[in-house]
Amino acid sequence: MREFKKLTPYKEALSLLLNDLGEIPETEEIPLDEALWRVLAEDIVSPIDLPPFSRAAVDGYAVRAEDTFPAREYNPVEIRVVDEIIAGEESNTEVTPGTAVKLLTGAKIPEGANAVLMHEMAERDGDVIRVLRPVAPGQNVAMKGEDVRKGEVVLRKGHILRPQDISILKALGFRTVKVKRKPRVGIIVTGSELIEEFDEEALMHGKILESNSVMLKGLVEQYFGEPRFYGVFPDDEGEIGKAIEKAQEENDLVLVTGGSAFGDMDFAHRFVKLLFHGTTIRPGRPIGYGERTFVMSGYPVAVFAQFHLYVKHALAKLVGARNYEVKVRARLTERVPSQLGRYEFVKVWYENGKAKPIKKKGSGIISSLVESNGYITIPEDSEGYLEGEEVEVVLY
Amino acid sequence: MREFKKLTPYKEALSLLLNDLGEIPETEEIPLDEALWRVLAEDIVSPIDLPPFSRAAVDGYAVRAEDTFPAREYNPVEIRVVDEIIAGEESNTEVTPGTAVKLLTGAKIPEGANAVLMHEMAERDGDVIRVLRPVAPGQNVAMKGEDVRKGEVVLRKGHILRPQDISILKALGFRTVKVKRKPRVGIIVTGSELIEEFDEEALMHGKILESNSVMLKGLVEQYFGEPRFYGVFPDDEGEIGKAIEKAQEENDLVLVTGGSAFGDMDFAHRFVKLLFHGTTIRPGRPIGYGERTFVMSGYPVAVFAQFHLYVKHALAKLVGARNYEVKVRARLTERVPSQLGRYEFVKVWYENGKAKPIKKKGSGIISSLVESNGYITIPEDSEGYLEGEEVEVVLY
Repeated sequence: MREFKKLTPYKEALSLLLNDLGEIPETEEIPLDEALWRVLAEDIVSPIDLPPFSRAAVDGYAVRAEDTFPAREYNPVEIRVVDEIIAGEESNTEVTPGTAVKLLTGAKIPEGANAVLMHEMAERDGDVIRVLRPVAPGQNVAMKGEDVRKGEVVLRKGHILRPQDISILKALGFRTVKVKRKPRVGIIVTGSELIEEFDEEALMHGKILESNSVMLKGLVEQYFGEPRFYGVFPDDEGEIGKAIEKAQEENDLVLVTGGSAFGDMDFAHRFVKLLFHGTTIRPGRPIGYGERTFVMSGYPVAVFAQFHLYVKHALAKLVGARNYEVKVRARLTERVPSQLGRYEFVKVWYENGKAKPIKKKGSGIISSLVESNGYITIPEDSEGYLEGEEVEVVLY
Repeated sequence: MREFKKLTPYKEALSLLLNDLGEIPETEEIPLDEALWRVLAEDIVSPIDLPPFSRAAVDGYAVRAEDTFPAREYNPVEIRVVDEIIAGEESNTEVTPGTAVKLLTGAKIPEGANAVLMHEMAERDGDVIRVLRPVAPGQNVAMKGEDVRKGEVVLRKGHILRPQDISILKALGFRTVKVKRKPRVGIIVTGSELIEEFDEEALMHGKILESNSVMLKGLVEQYFGEPRFYGVFPDDEGEIGKAIEKAQEENDLVLVTGGSAFGDMDFAHRFVKLLFHGTTIRPGRPIGYGERTFVMSGYPVAVFAQFHLYVKHALAKLVGARNYEVKVRARLTERVPSQLGRYEFVKVWYENGKAKPIKKKGSGIISSLVESNGYITIPEDSEGYLEGEEVEVVLY
């Protein structure tokens, strides 16, 4: 067994990785209601003004504001209602001095009018309304283009589409949207000690229930990808090599767990020309990367850290995603020490402005992931943080 | 047109709503890899210890720690290797005084041994290792049950399943998990002014491109639900009434947009016996609720606020979800005034511990939703917040 001759600093390895990967060129044109959480493949330029016309913001009367200027409660102004618009209709009647057109919220403001008098502010008497208070020009009017101007960039390439983003696309007349194809991610789990289904007898005799596959599937889905599971492979050099080769051919990225250390049975790293192998992160030090393939740990907590520190950013690079991390500021509820030279991944429970480090240590302690909702990192040149110190938490 | 006689305070209306709704009884037993973001229907009690046996945390030699106590670099202890375990296998050889069993990471610790000497710490010479430094009892051993104890509650009912939660379920031997059935949510959009597809001519003559349907579909999906769109209905009392009745029969919850105000053409509220109608929230004041049906505004921003302030919590109640909101503390970059008596929903851009209020006002300004990533609320008895004041942001 060999040890790592040199641990690549976290950020240096991240740069090597991101420089090695290019954005996937393929895009998909999909209907709006399938676009939730997909990544925009192009800037969206508005083809229209929104609203496309000035419209009433309340139910009431389209008037010339000037006509109402003298109106007082003790000295009402009388205006004649010359037309009435029902929803979705419009009026071709021009609003001339001393006249008004009754309309509903959303209706197009007729020619000549420049304000809407709220229904409640007028006393109606036959075809005449008595105006008790003046309205200002533009009042109760949603101005043409006040939401979005024609030609304006509404959403940028790389944006992750949320419900409100899809709504604005619909309001601008789009029926489909161009998004990035989901990166295909092959997942290979290795280890002769692993079993896939509960077997008490086997467990009592040294076998371990494999749990990295479902975790990685979920993480890949969470971060824009389409996971493809290739199965659990025993520590057989030939089989693992074949699986990696096949997965590399069929995917944009390949994740292999359990093959990254230098143990006698850790084969995976022998099949991939690695750009780096062994970095300063902890847990997860023995990670390797090359040929669009990550050679990862077997321990769930190490795999989880390796995913968040490296694989997540690789997936974002493949689709050009922006703002894919939720980062918040928090104060530590207690001190978190760290060894110089290590880039620590520390699980925390974030709540109400405070981050509580999860004490349970060990790369095999899955419950430490379950009990956390985010992480902080401690760079190589830091000995850690003090109690009460402000830190950045990445939520997951 | 009538106005609201009384606006129900925000929290009072929320209580009326939540008291009216019960948890959906139906559950679904689904495979683990379909369970991402679903809501747990029961507590998960661990059927096993995890790990089920004490195992090696490193590659090396299982030893009796006592044997190594005298070991020094200038005075090594010699121990005889009596067996070798490869991954996934176990050894029935007892480790007796002066002996060791070679093993790999993850292997079950043989009888008699209580520590693992790291591979690198021993000099091998034939079937003898020379130990240069002592190891402590328990060192390099992952103890039985140290991750999860048999009988322990690992995840609680109402938990939203994340990748790591699914991983621990797999590691504990579960193949499926019992989750809440997704609430079925009928969506009805009303308004004669609405069109569903781009038509420049129609837009220029007063029509509006409907965009609430896709926004509500997305929001319902985001918060545990299964959206079902019933279409866009013109302001026709009979048609809207029939649609609401049908949707009520077929769904757990119904959302009707555009029928909540008291305008001449706002019909929806006439078909539902409302528990409240008109609350102090702004935007979105005219919201009504009764008979598992929300009567909502037509304006996108008002609909969005109504969803987050009311509908989201209703959906969470239906499935018993916990921790479904990401709440963070932030300092306001500028002052946010509010009128007494209003429960304000203020969109913000949260970044790096700071919340910047989105200035664009108006219930129709969808771009204000696009430019925000969360909201703050200002209760009825507050006149707002000062610049630099710490507030709670709910991220979306």
